[in-house]
Parts: sequence; structure tokens; C-alpha cells
Amino acid sequence: MTLELDDLRVRTLGECRYDSPFAEMLATKKTSPHYVHEDDRVLVDDTVSVLLGRGAPIERLPSLEAAGPRRKVYFDPAATSVGIVTCGGLCPGLNDVIRGIVQELTEHYHVAHIYGFRNGYAGLTRQHRERVVELDLHAVRDINNDGGTILGSSRGDQDAEEMVDTLVELGIDVLFVIGGDGSMRGAMKITKEIDARGLDVAVVGVPKTIDNDLPYTDQSFGFQTAFAQATEFIASVFVESQAAENGVGIVKLMGRHSGFIACYAALSNNDADVVLIPEVPFVLDGPDGLLARVEEHVRRHGQVVVVVAEGAGQELLEQEGRTTDASGNAKLGDIGLFLKEKLTEHLTEAGLPPTVRYLDPSYAIRSVAANAYDSVYCVRLAHAAVHAGMAGRTDTVVVRWRRRFVHIPMRLITSHRNQVDPDGDLWMSVLEATGQPASFGG
Amino acid sequence: MTLELDDLRVRTLGECRYDSPFAEMLATKKTSPHYVHEDDRVLVDDTVSVLLGRGAPIERLPSLEAAGPRRKVYFDPAATSVGIVTCGGLCPGLNDVIRGIVQELTEHYHVAHIYGFRNGYAGLTRQHRERVVELDLHAVRDINNDGGTILGSSRGDQDAEEMVDTLVELGIDVLFVIGGDGSMRGAMKITKEIDARGLDVAVVGVPKTIDNDLPYTDQSFGFQTAFAQATEFIASVFVESQAAENGVGIVKLMGRHSGFIACYAALSNNDADVVLIPEVPFVLDGPDGLLARVEEHVRRHGQVVVVVAEGAGQELLEQEGRTTDASGNAKLGDIGLFLKEKLTEHLTEAGLPPTVRYLDPSYAIRSVAANAYDSVYCVRLAHAAVHAGMAGRTDTVVVRWRRRFVHIPMRLITSHRNQVDPDGDLWMSVLEATGQPASFGG
Amino acid sequence: MTLELDDLRVRTLGECRYDSPFAEMLATKKTSPHYVHEDDRVLVDDTVSVLLGRGAPIERLPSLEAAGPRRKVYFDPAATSVGIVTCGGLCPGLNDVIRGIVQELTEHYHVAHIYGFRNGYAGLTRQHRERVVELDLHAVRDINNDGGTILGSSRGDQDAEEMVDTLVELGIDVLFVIGGDGSMRGAMKITKEIDARGLDVAVVGVPKTIDNDLPYTDQSFGFQTAFAQATEFIASVFVESQAAENGVGIVKLMGRHSGFIACYAALSNNDADVVLIPEVPFVLDGPDGLLARVEEHVRRHGQVVVVVAEGAGQELLEQEGRTTDASGNAKLGDIGLFLKEKLTEHLTEAGLPPTVRYLDPSYAIRSVAANAYDSVYCVRLAHAAVHAGMAGRTDTVVVRWRRRFVHIPMRLITSHRNQVDPDGDLWMSVLEATGQPASFGG
Amino acid sequence: MTLELDDLRVRTLGECRYDSPFAEMLATKKTSPHYVHEDDRVLVDDTVSVLLGRGAPIERLPSLEAAGPRRKVYFDPAATSVGIVTCGGLCPGLNDVIRGIVQELTEHYHVAHIYGFRNGYAGLTRQHRERVVELDLHAVRDINNDGGTILGSSRGDQDAEEMVDTLVELGIDVLFVIGGDGSMRGAMKITKEIDARGLDVAVVGVPKTIDNDLPYTDQSFGFQTAFAQATEFIASVFVESQAAENGVGIVKLMGRHSGFIACYAALSNNDADVVLIPEVPFVLDGPDGLLARVEEHVRRHGQVVVVVAEGAGQELLEQEGRTTDASGNAKLGDIGLFLKEKLTEHLTEAGLPPTVRYLDPSYAIRSVAANAYDSVYCVRLAHAAVHAGMAGRTDTVVVRWRRRFVHIPMRLITSHRNQVDPDGDLWMSVLEATGQPASFGG
Repeated sequence: MTLELDDLRVRTLGECRYDSPFAEMLATKKTSPHYVHEDDRVLVDDTVSVLLGRGAPIERLPSLEAAGPRRKVYFDPAATSVGIVTCGGLCPGLNDVIRGIVQELTEHYHVAHIYGFRNGYAGLTRQHRERVVELDLHAVRDINNDGGTILGSSRGDQDAEEMVDTLVELGIDVLFVIGGDGSMRGAMKITKEIDARGLDVAVVGVPKTIDNDLPYTDQSFGFQTAFAQATEFIASVFVESQAAENGVGIVKLMGRHSGFIACYAALSNNDADVVLIPEVPFVLDGPDGLLARVEEHVRRHGQVVVVVAEGAGQELLEQEGRTTDASGNAKLGDIGLFLKEKLTEHLTEAGLPPTVRYLDPSYAIRSVAANAYDSVYCVRLAHAAVHAGMAGRTDTVVVRWRRRFVHIPMRLITSHRNQVDPDGDLWMSVLEATGQPASFGG
Repeated sequence: MTLELDDLRVRTLGECRYDSPFAEMLATKKTSPHYVHEDDRVLVDDTVSVLLGRGAPIERLPSLEAAGPRRKVYFDPAATSVGIVTCGGLCPGLNDVIRGIVQELTEHYHVAHIYGFRNGYAGLTRQHRERVVELDLHAVRDINNDGGTILGSSRGDQDAEEMVDTLVELGIDVLFVIGGDGSMRGAMKITKEIDARGLDVAVVGVPKTIDNDLPYTDQSFGFQTAFAQATEFIASVFVESQAAENGVGIVKLMGRHSGFIACYAALSNNDADVVLIPEVPFVLDGPDGLLARVEEHVRRHGQVVVVVAEGAGQELLEQEGRTTDASGNAKLGDIGLFLKEKLTEHLTEAGLPPTVRYLDPSYAIRSVAANAYDSVYCVRLAHAAVHAGMAGRTDTVVVRWRRRFVHIPMRLITSHRNQVDPDGDLWMSVLEATGQPASFGG
Repeated sequence: MTLELDDLRVRTLGECRYDSPFAEMLATKKTSPHYVHEDDRVLVDDTVSVLLGRGAPIERLPSLEAAGPRRKVYFDPAATSVGIVTCGGLCPGLNDVIRGIVQELTEHYHVAHIYGFRNGYAGLTRQHRERVVELDLHAVRDINNDGGTILGSSRGDQDAEEMVDTLVELGIDVLFVIGGDGSMRGAMKITKEIDARGLDVAVVGVPKTIDNDLPYTDQSFGFQTAFAQATEFIASVFVESQAAENGVGIVKLMGRHSGFIACYAALSNNDADVVLIPEVPFVLDGPDGLLARVEEHVRRHGQVVVVVAEGAGQELLEQEGRTTDASGNAKLGDIGLFLKEKLTEHLTEAGLPPTVRYLDPSYAIRSVAANAYDSVYCVRLAHAAVHAGMAGRTDTVVVRWRRRFVHIPMRLITSHRNQVDPDGDLWMSVLEATGQPASFGG
Repeated sequence: MTLELDDLRVRTLGECRYDSPFAEMLATKKTSPHYVHEDDRVLVDDTVSVLLGRGAPIERLPSLEAAGPRRKVYFDPAATSVGIVTCGGLCPGLNDVIRGIVQELTEHYHVAHIYGFRNGYAGLTRQHRERVVELDLHAVRDINNDGGTILGSSRGDQDAEEMVDTLVELGIDVLFVIGGDGSMRGAMKITKEIDARGLDVAVVGVPKTIDNDLPYTDQSFGFQTAFAQATEFIASVFVESQAAENGVGIVKLMGRHSGFIACYAALSNNDADVVLIPEVPFVLDGPDGLLARVEEHVRRHGQVVVVVAEGAGQELLEQEGRTTDASGNAKLGDIGLFLKEKLTEHLTEAGLPPTVRYLDPSYAIRSVAANAYDSVYCVRLAHAAVHAGMAGRTDTVVVRWRRRFVHIPMRLITSHRNQVDPDGDLWMSVLEATGQPASFGG
């Protein structure tokens, strides 16, 4: 997919005519408070050969609009009402984003109302409309210390007409949607319905995924907290595997389509001997297969630790029982239990009857509060979202790319998934650290 | 079981004739470094009505020998060789105990050799004899920062004759066994074989159980670390249950016969609404049953958190599939999965289709390093064990009772299990904190 | 000080005539929810030789009343108003105690009002009376996750008449005072004024000290959290001392009169080479002095870590500048800075120019939230305090002794300080673990 | 300073003629394991207006060489000896870098010898030459769990000739220097001496600074761990300030010339009301001065928290007593104590006698082990350094820039300091989060 510059331009509701609360501060500064000027753009790619390959002048190369406060805004702050909704699975940092949005809107823009919808898009339906809560500084005071989301969440879609009815009824000017790719597709339906009715409502997304599989995003918020938490469980099965004869530790980590959590968690404490991710298929049998590698490790070191992303090895699982859950994610066969069974079988036959310790921590990873880094990241992302919404950006998400906060069109964030490149340096680091071969089998 | 004073006397191999390295220090002190004098005893019970009920003079009331350094020891330190073995499941603090024993023997008693046996009693068999390691200060330097045991462990018994052969071959004078009640039964077989051969070898136990079910013991080592760790998982499902509609969090915790971990973990963060333990049977159905309580809580608060000890509700599980594992523990049906199924079914029928989050953290709890408190406890327990062994106590374990370190005969530690008293103040605290009824059903 | 049984009886305002909310639960139980029956008593001492030395029959030996819920209470719950005040320096667990009191009073006794006084006894004065807050379940929901006290605190005394005026004005029946020995003296003045006016108001104390220097108390609440936190700082200077040539790490810890924090923190990670506490005087110079020991350690190991309680070595400090702070505590010369200077001087002269790393963490230790153990302890202490107050106990504090919750007369808690016994087994453990001599100098 | 492309080219000792152990793996991959090809370059800047301003074709724009494994290397792995030295103050991650270097050299390159020099450049002097240690997998096994550096460190320079003598004597081919800008200046002197002698020795730097003030570096390793740790101390004084009347919390954090730690720590928990950094001068007095802001905050909220970087407000400190320490850093007057005094004075005069809590955590921040993120970062930085050295890069450091690992000439890393841009978005975020004015005074 080759993007042109125009694919990267975000929509704006109209001309910004109101003074921003930051107007004075921006005016007195030598430059604006951006790494780049508020009207400037940032290259998507910065590799010389790629840029040369585009064969375009610099000003036509794919680039992104910088996020941040503007001198002028589209909405009159004092007359603006805002809504916030969190959708999909939990992820560290949701409360930090909510808090950052509420604080920025309250302390700087002094908007009229901030409404929180309960339990995802369900909270925008007629049925749940009375459960809407008004948010202020007190309501968000300490919430960053708690995991989860004070607004609750849910998976799945709702009727766009009904949801826009709710926005209209509450007089909402800007809707902030914090959620995954499914939620962003939902947000685009809302935008479409808003457009159809000719309403003057902005929809701004803060993309969320614990799997770090967002395109055009350095790292998704909560990811660092998640993989740090995941390392604890690898350490646990490592300790167990060392204490037993023929100890085998297996940890299944999140990652339906992308193995980032598995890779980073394995790198951070280096207790893993094998890392299996969706991006790199593997075979079990044969001299170069996984089972042979595991057997050899147990024979030589008396133990082994395997880290497996939940989406790895799907081709090995029987097709039966694959269904689709409410958000459209393929419900996957359980690769962790499959490996537990296969390894036990193989090692027993190999005369190394194993003691297997299997952990599937999932909820215990995603429900924790954001760590210091993710807290900073989330509050800055929240500020960027607020500035985008107040400036009338719509159908737009805020992301961090090459360490800058930028705007991208919402459809791009759902266009594909970021994955671990089997030819890239992250996977290379995993191979270097674990000593496992570039691939099993074949 | 009414113990008499004589039941509490521990065995000694013979008269202590060698000067202890602490002789001088003890001589110059006003009193000996004990809460009680080294020859004094501590009452087992200190409740006035119970003591009056015994109808015996104070000197005949059941009492325990104080642990600690003696002026004279039985073994000549410079000529003494020592063995250490860790058995059974992991528990925070194992490495602290090993380290404390090695440090005390090395720095103060300057014994000749300290041998570590690998992987439990298996390490004392002929087959594994060559895997014995010699332990010194360097080998144990930082091990308290790691969970597990550097010696490895295993469950199950081995042949006593073969193990005593190993002790004789290595010239071991004192064997320290760190393990649970099964391991202590193993240690008693070793002692019996030692006696049969007329050998001059002491066997001293440091009783271990993560479940805190040891009799005559304030709290077993590692227990505080374990329940602190367990609270994290309760917090996780609490966060999850709050984020979902009709959120149900279930955490299954260790506790085959005793619900201490469940009770303490539930008390420490107060997120649990229901606590189920082996000591208090419950019924599912009926107006006072568990299901009705859960339903009512979900209806009123939108969520519920259930903490269940693995040994709870066994009477509710089908009898099929109950087998016995290597250590003789009943292999239990899985009460956690059973509850998950039953609650889902009931709430769905009740028109409250739940989102259930189930965690079974087990290995992730027991494999962590000891916290600060348990580290102090373990090092002091280790010192007490060394003093007991050097003074020729045998068939003896060291425990903490009413905050004193004391000696008790080994058979007593295996005589019964400590349990949560359904009429006692700990369970009362749980009822007060959760608001759950004194019992479900019936 | 030899206590007689009568010294240990606590005062009660009068006969308990109202049904307790626990009446039914207690009636249906085989025994009452106490380790001991609610009318039974617990021996203060349980050492055989001591008991024999008293020469009294068992029923006349010093013993304590068990805490816990009663079948009957003195105050009519529905008509009862309650006040809570926290005084003195911060200590982990204050919020847990407040929360436990409020939850128990609300959920079980359903009392009419619970008032919180702001900033210690100052909050009971006329001037601050309007700052009183009403406390309910919502106000205390998550406060156990935060350090400090939601009520604020202050040191120092206030006029008893004025404070009792406030109690009368608010119609308070039970006042809970959470504070140190100075605060308990203040509480006794309030009780005296209550008595003088013939009022029917109970005053119940929950004794607090981070130094663990309370008499008749196993361990004061917050102590475990505190010493666990302290170990982090010892670890820091240990790491620093290892990285530098002639590295000297010094950590000054809390402990004006008692060295418990220093001892436990030193034992828990074993990085300390020298521990200095108020109970064991030391000299600097001479072949057996502290400086020689430090020099020898640096010479042999290249580094040394010294842990010093703030109250240690006061006899070495110049008398000048000793004043008295608001609570009557002697303001101490700074032994940490003194040692830093002396060690630097000595080692430089000895040809071992040191790199000294000095930490004085204080506030960073006492301001953290309680750990899991202390949380459980605090909630149970809070419950015990509520039961005591509702049952009309006054001039009374609740403590934990030999692992039971008991009542003792308030004056006893201020009668003397618990200290580390230089001839006892805790100090012996420190000597064994650090290898330092029984004393420096002399 | 405008860099040209040629300023960014790094030196190589000569042609790479030996097969790299990665040759086969790289050959079979579609592309090389880099985000960019091993011969490709990455733009230094990626802002469109800046690039247009350069007026150069893309291939002449400033760009950096990608780090990572090469198909060919300069040194024959089996015949290569390597040295490692850590210099300057402690920083989380030093042990991770050492470990990563040793593991990569051992497991993949199988080099002949890896020597560790003790205590910084001092370890390369004649006097300390015998203290050199040989490093292998066992020596570095668990060291990532410990703070500090197993090699020790020291500040200050040593004689280059003497150090090169040591390299020659040990036959070292590649020297890895992990240290700050002073250390890199030292490394350049070593390189100069190597050149003067015509030796074939590579010197590769891994730049370290806890202050995050390295140019051309996304974030310096250990920085995330450091600011996460720093937030704990801000939380402590926040809790203290809330508990007292007119509570003032002050935390002095690292940052001689750059306020990154102060900014990030303040953003991550949002308890700070004022953040003072070296990059933004401030005045105390006047209606817009710091003292007025603090007074107003105390008056309105009853408390205030001030976070100050150690290098802030130097212009306010008296010039006296400013000396230069061994590494050439200006020894700064203590701004923390200065503020403590000034705030106390001012608030007392303003009728708000404060309770001031001051913390200066320093060593307690920099001595901790790296967190999960920094561990991953360090191991990948270590791998990059090894690949650079084996490929004969010299006078070169490895850094991360825009999320890629790249090579830059060593002199550039010492050319200037990275600072918080008072007109940039990080400082803007701080202003938004704290609500403090853009500047105090003037």
C-alpha cells in the first residue's frame, strides 16, 4: 500500500475562528509549542533509499499534520459540550486518557459540559442514555491509580442512528472515542451518519490496542505496562521450571495477530528459550521442528521456557470450533493448551517426563494501572486529542509517530495491522537473545 | 487432642559437650539471647479459662522448649558435615532459609562441609548422589532475591535405607529438611532408619506450607508474601468486573484444606464480595444459597467478585476423577471452573448475562521471592534450625509460636492441619469485611 | 514494673443493654468469634519460669480482656454518633484504620453519624470546628490505596475543655483517637474532662507509632510496611558502595528511642554490615570502636554499609542545639550527618579516601500506603476498636498481643516504650546476620 | 549548528573481510534485519519545512548509518579480544548493557576473551591492571536484576598512554566504553593515542546519562526507570503536604543542565503544582514570581508540591562555593535547600506557617535496576554496539534516534546537551498539567 500525501490529510469541520486559550502563550513564544510548527508536517518515512524511491520532491512526500494546541479553534469553548466513550477490552492507561481529556477541557478550555457514556457504544443507545454521567475534575482526580476504565466498556457495534440521536439530544459537539480498530469502524459509521444529517459534530479517536498492532504508531498506549507485567509471569514459570526435573514453563500472552508483547516480554528478562508469534509460522516435528529444539534444551539445561502469543501457530490448530466473537475477532483455538499437551507427550516419549507449568495471565496483565511512562504518554495523547477536537478535526485519530504527536485520518488506523517484521531488527533481537533458530521446521 | 507436657519434649542425641561459638557472648550477657532462657519453656496456650480447665500446676502445663543458640553444643563444629534438602511445592522464602542456614553454619560455627541435595529426596538416592553440590557463602550470596529454590525440589518419597546410605557416605552429621507434612513424614522414616543403625545423625525440619496450615505455628514462612501476591489477582478481576456489564470476577487461590490465603487476601484489599473456604461448606441453590447472593449482588452493584480456595466446596463436586498425586494429596476437582460454569448459567437464566473473568494464578503466587517480612522470618528460622541441629536436637522441627521460636517434636507438625476456625475471629473479620452471611444455604 | 491483674482491667461506661448486631450470629455459633471467649482473658506472659515466679494462682496472673464483638452493647447503635481523629506523624495504615472504622460502623452498627476531625486535635478546637467532615462509605472507598490520612494530622496538644465542648456540640458518643503516645496523653485529658462533666462519652484509642515502640503490642500497625520500604534504601546505598572505590553507604532510619526499623530492615536484605540503635551505645575510637570496624571492612571488602537509627549514639553528639518539638519529643542531633563526617575523616586518614553515599529517607518511608499484611492488620484493629467503643469501653486502647486482639487501659500504652532488648533474640539475629561484634568499644 | 552529511559519517578501521556469524541468516532473508538496509541511512530530521530549508537533494540531507549485524565483519571473531569499562555516575541499565555485550559476543561471535575493567578508567591504569576480570555467561547471568554495575565505576580521567598500554598488553581489539560525555571525551583521547601508535583497535561508546541530555538520542537508557522512580518521591511529599496544615512538599531531582526527569516525573502522576528546570529561569519575588504562586496555591488548596531539577535557578544562587568536581561538572549550589528556606520564610511572613517536607532522593533513584522497557532497550543497544565494534567502527557511538538504532561519530555526542525546549511540546504539556504560568516573574 503506497500512500500519497493526500491520503494523509485529515478533515476539518471548517475555519477556526475562535481564540484558543493558548493564543497568547503561542503568540509570545519564539516558535509554537510543537516539535514542528502547527502548520508544518512530518515525513512518514525517513529512510533515504525509500524517499529516493518515491521520486517526488520533498513537499510531495507522504507527511503528517502535527498535533497540539492551535491559535484559533473551531468550537467556541464556553459553548461546547463533549462526550467520551471507552470501548473494547481493557488496556492500561484508559483512565489516564479520560482524566487527561477532562482536565484539559476543564482547566484550559473551560467547556460547558463533559459527558461520559457507560459501557462502550451501548452507553450511547436509547436504552442506556439515562446512565450518562457528567465528568469534572473531582470525578477524575485519582483514577489514574486504578486499572480499567471508570466509564466501563463493552465490545460490539450499536446502531449509528440511535447513537447520533443521543449526541444530538445531549448537544454534543465533540465525541472522543477511545477504542480499538473495531471501535474506530464504529466511529466512522457515526461520522457518516453525522455527515448525512449535516451536523456540526467532530469525532476524534484515541486508538487503543494492548497488542501494539496499530499502524502509524510508535507504540500503542499501555503496551509498555503490559509487557512489563507479562515479564513477571515468564519469571514465574522460569523459577518453576528450574526447581523441577525436566521443568517446562509455558506462558501464553496476548497477541492475536502480532507478537509484540511476546517479543518485548521475552527480551526484557531473557528467561525465555523459545518465542512463538503469529508472524512466524512453525512446525512441531522433524529435526528442525519445535519439539526437537525443546527436547534438546531440556536435555542440556534440565528445563525450558516457551513464550507463545495467543495467535501463534493457528495453522496447526484444528479448524473446528473457530467462531467469531462480538467484535468480529476470530475466536482462536488455544495454542497454549495445545503446546502443553504436545510438549508433555513428546518429552515423555523422549524419556524426559516433564513437569509442566502453564500460565495464561491475560486479565492479570491488561487490568493493571499504567506505569509512569504510559501515564505520561496517555496524558499527552489526551491533550492532543482535545486540541484536535476543539480545532474541528474530525474522522481523525491522534497517534505518536517517530516520537511526535500527529493527526491521521481515522480510516488509516483500521487499514491494516502493525506486525513484527520477521526480517526486522526486533525479531532479530529476539533470535539473538534466545538463541532460537530463525525458524522451526521446513 | 489433649497434649501433655511430655508430648512436647524434643529428642536430643546426647549431652552437649563442645563449646558453642556463642558461649562467650552468652556468658557476658545479663540473660541469654532468648525471649526466654535457653532452658526455660513457653506455654502452648495462654487463655486463662483453658489453663484453669487443665487443672494442673503451671510447671505441668503444656509448654515448649525455646529455640536459639546454646552455650554448649553436641557436635564439634569444626568436624561437622551438614546436608540440606528442599522438598515439595515452591514457597516464597525457600532460598532465604537455605541462605540463612549456610551463612550461620559458615560464619559462626565454621563447619567442615555443607552439602545441598538436588530436587528433594530424589537427590538423596543413589542415582542422583553425584549431583550433590557443596554450598558456601558465594553460592548463596544473592539467592534471596530469587523465587524458588536453588536446590530444586520434587514431591514424593524415596527409600529410607538408600537415603541414609547417602548420609553415611558423605559423613553427614545433621540433615536439614525444608518441606511440608509429606516431607516431614519422609524425614521421620529417615530418623527411624538412623536409629535402627545406631547412627549419630540429627534430623531437623523447617516446616513449609504456603497454605499456612501448620499446627503450632503462628504463620508459615512465605504466607505473607503469598497472600500479598494473591491480592493483585483479586484486584485484577475486580477491575475487570467493574468495566463490564454484569461483571463477574472469580479467583481461585491455593488452600487444599485451609482457607487462610483466601481470607487474608480478601481482607487486605476488600474487593471480594464472597469468600469460599474448605472449612465452611456452602450450598448453591435456594434463597440463602450462593447463587442467590451472587445474583443479588450483581443486580444491585452491577458486578461481583468471588474468591475461592481450591479446596472449598469439594462436597459439591462429583466424586469421579478424584485421584491421589505423588505426595498423597487428594487431587481435587476444579472448584473454580465449576463455579464459573454455575454462575454463568444462573446469571444468564436470571436475565443478567454475565461477563466472567476467571483467574487461577497458582504458580505466579508461589514462585515469587519472599517479601521483607518473610525474609526476616526465614533468616531467623534458619538460625534457629542451625542452633537446634548443632545442639543435637533431632526428630525436631523449629517453629514460631506466639512470636517465639521454639522446638517441637516432628510428629506433632504432621499430626493435624491448622484451619480457619468458622467460629473464630479471622472468619468473623471476613464476614464483617465482605458482608456475606455466616453461611450459604441449609 | 510488675503489673497486677487489676492494673489490666479496662473501664466500661456501664452495663451493656442493647442488642448487638452480632447477637444472633454469636448465639448460633458454638463459641464466640474470638480466639478466646468474649469474657475470657489472655495471659500477659506465657513463660513458665516467669509465671512460677509470680507465685499466684492462674486466675490471678496478669491477663488481658479479649477484644471483639459482644452480644450486648452499651450504646444504642441507631442513636449513636461517632468522631474520628488522627494525630501525630504519618504512618502506613492510617487510612485503612479510618476506613475499617467507618465501614464497620456503617455496615454493621448503622450508626447515626460519623464525623471526621481535620488535622489532629486542632480539628476539635473552636476555630476549626466548621471543618469537620461527615464520613460515609463513599468517602472511604479507595483510601486504603493512598498513604497518609484523609483527615490530615498535626502534632501537639489542645485545650481539653474546648475539645469536649466540640464533642458535646456534635453529640458525639464515641471518640476514636488514632495516634501516638503524645496523642494518647491528650486523649486521657479529654477523658478526664468528660468524667469531670459526668458525660456518657467513650474514648477509644488505636495506638500508632512507626517505630514499633508500643508496649503490650506485638508490632505496631504500619511497621512492616515501613521496614520493607526502608530496605530499598539500604539496597540503594549498598549498590552505590559496591560501585565506588572505598564505597561507604549510610542510611539513617526512623527510631528515636527504639531501633526496630533499623534491625528488621537490616535483617531483611542482609546488605548492612553495621547496625546502630539507641538501645546499644557505641564508641567511635579505639581498637574495638566503630571506626576500626568500618576501616577493617572497607579494607577487606572495598565497601561498607552502615544502618543507623536516628536515636542512636545520642551520647556522642554535642549537647548544643537540643530542643523540644511541639509533641515533646527531644529534637535530636543528626547522628547520620555526624557519622558521615566522622567516617569520611577517619577513612581518609587511614589512606582509604571514601566515596560516601548518605540517605535520610524518612518521609519517603512513612508516607506510603500500607502493604497487604498491614492492611489486614489495620482493618481488624479498626473492627476491634469499634466493638470496644460500642460496648462502652473507655480510656481504653485496642492492641494485638501474642496474636490476639485485646483491650488495655490507655495509661499503660503511654507508660513506657518497647525497645530492642540488647540481650534478646532480635538483636542476636542482627549480630549473627551482620557479623558485627556484640558492642563497639569499651 | 548545521550539520552536513559528511559530519555524520562514522569511521571504520578498514574493509570487512570476515564472515559474520549472521551472514547466512542475513542472506536467506528477503531484506536485512534492519528497519533500514545495513547500507542505508536514516534522515536526522523529518520535518518538511526543515528539509525544504536545507535546499539539498534527499541524498545529501543529513542522515545516519543504521546499526545492526553486518554480513562481513572487520575482526576475525575467534581471534578477537574485547574490553568493557563503565564510567561515571550510576544509571539504571548498566548491568543490562554489560550483560548484553557479553552474551552477544559469547553466543554469536564466540570471541576469544572478554575483559572487564574495574572502577572506570582507573581500571585501565597500570596500578589497577591486575584487577581486570574475565567475563563469561556465568558472570553476567542474573546481573540485570541488580542496580549499579558489576564492574564498578569512577569519575575522572586517566592518562591515555597508560590506558593504551593496558589495551596492548591484554591484546584487546575492541574497547566498549559505557559512560557519559566526560567518559566519551576520555574515549576520544584513547582513540587518538591508538591512532598515533597506528594500532588496529576499535573504540565504541554506549552513551549514558541519567539526565537524558544526550543529543541525537530519543531517550537515554535508564531514563524511564529513573523518572518512574522519581514519581514515588513526588507522591511521598504530596501525601505529606496533604496531611499537614499549609503543607509544602519539595523534591529535588537530578538534572544539572536539563529538566527532563523533573518534567516527566511531574507529568506521570500529576501531583506537582510547580516544576522548575534549568532551561526556564524564574524569579522569586513580585506578583508573578514563584513565591506569589506558591502562596496563592497554599491559600487556596492548603498545600503545594514543588519539583525542582538540581540545575534550576542557578542564577539565583550566590556564586560562592561553586567548584568543579573530578569529572568537570560544575558543583552546584543546592537549589532545593535554597527553596526550602525561601518558601518557609515567605509563607511564614504571609501568615501561612508551613510544614515543609523536603526530599533529595538522588542515589535512591539512580541505583535501582532497569525496568522492563529499559532492559529491552539496553540489550538491543548492547547488541548494536557489538555489531559496530566487530564491523570495525571506531570513534563511534550507538544511539537510538527516531526509534532506530544508528551510529554517530563520537565527538557529536559530546558536542552539546539535549535540553527541554521552553517552546516545545514537552514543556507545554507540563504547563498544561500543572497549570503553572509559562514563566515566573519578569
